[in-house]
Amino acid sequence: MRKHDFIRDGDGWQTLGEEIHYENPHVTLATHTLLTPTRQDPRQPAKWVVAHRKAAVVVAPQTAEGDFLLVRQERIPVRASLWEFPAGQIDEDKVGLENTAVIEETVRRELREETGYELPDDARGELVALGMFFTSQGFTDEHNYLYLARGVVRSARGSEHGEHEAITDCRAFSLQELRQMIAAGELRDANTLSLYARLVARGLVEP
Amino acid sequence: MRKHDFIRDGDGWQTLGEEIHYENPHVTLATHTLLTPTRQDPRQPAKWVVAHRKAAVVVAPQTAEGDFLLVRQERIPVRASLWEFPAGQIDEDKVGLENTAVIEETVRRELREETGYELPDDARGELVALGMFFTSQGFTDEHNYLYLARGVVRSARGSEHGEHEAITDCRAFSLQELRQMIAAGELRDANTLSLYARLVARGLVEP
Repeated sequence: MRKHDFIRDGDGWQTLGEEIHYENPHVTLATHTLLTPTRQDPRQPAKWVVAHRKAAVVVAPQTAEGDFLLVRQERIPVRASLWEFPAGQIDEDKVGLENTAVIEETVRRELREETGYELPDDARGELVALGMFFTSQGFTDEHNYLYLARGVVRSARGSEHGEHEAITDCRAFSLQELRQMIAAGELRDANTLSLYARLVARGLVEP
Repeated sequence: MRKHDFIRDGDGWQTLGEEIHYENPHVTLATHTLLTPTRQDPRQPAKWVVAHRKAAVVVAPQTAEGDFLLVRQERIPVRASLWEFPAGQIDEDKVGLENTAVIEETVRRELREETGYELPDDARGELVALGMFFTSQGFTDEHNYLYLARGVVRSARGSEHGEHEAITDCRAFSLQELRQMIAAGELRDANTLSLYARLVARGLVEP
């Protein structure tokens, strides 16, 4: 099973075995047998079902006017269309290398494809890295890198949605609207909420 | 496959079939075949691999002094120990009923078991519901209910960890420390970040 670069044994973690239950290009489900910092007896190892998923990026695109772009997307697992910050998975063939260049290339690609906006290469545009987060740390190794893209502008190439995506809308919202949508529960996915949390904690937006 | 109460067909969503790949008491992995609002042709339905997980609760326990309690827990899928707000799954036998009474009972149980603190039944204690969020909406129906528990006090019964949990520490942090840990990426799970986002957006904490 493909491992992420930075999720590794060491410091008391030791993987003893892995039984794969299901695997496709998007997910691997397996039972891991392992020692953990608090469970070091090889006769009584821990066993845990883990879903392996690709890492992803999430980006808060901010226009020169200070507004934020959100996309509306059909999300099959929850049978709903959600307003979210644009996001997309990092091509795993390129990982091995979970490095800044590959991650930022993914941010720029997803931004342009999902919103039709892009980050100017000149002084008007700035990409601010805001770390990563785990989506469901008791279940999956999935982790998403968070970015603020300041000064985005409409791309001459427009948007371009993947065949498996169902993005039905893209709009600009003021910070005040964003905050109200979070407070009201209208924004309700981990990507968008985690990115807002980092933006606020870093003092990059007024709360 | 068990469905969550509020994740249902309707409004253009229609499940046509489901092929289960793996199932245990904690997770079901299945390929869903379905119609979505933008894909209504039954000859070309959407197909998507979905992980079904129990719903959970996440609670920000705040003491009378204004500090927040975090627990440190070994998280096998990411091979790391993380500081997090206390969280726990809702007993699915009780769902069917994904109602406020069951959810709040779970909040009180997890709070006491994981931190050894409890919410007084008198005027000193207050439980504030902050909606829910989806952990990874392109992959799983998992959704977690967010709560602020104001005025928690030490329980005479102490803490009590489940046999499959590895909580190694519990400490109180000031709001300022919480914010710094988020900014620095030391707090890096969707539960904790999403709950902080809602607390800030609702004006329940200074950012």
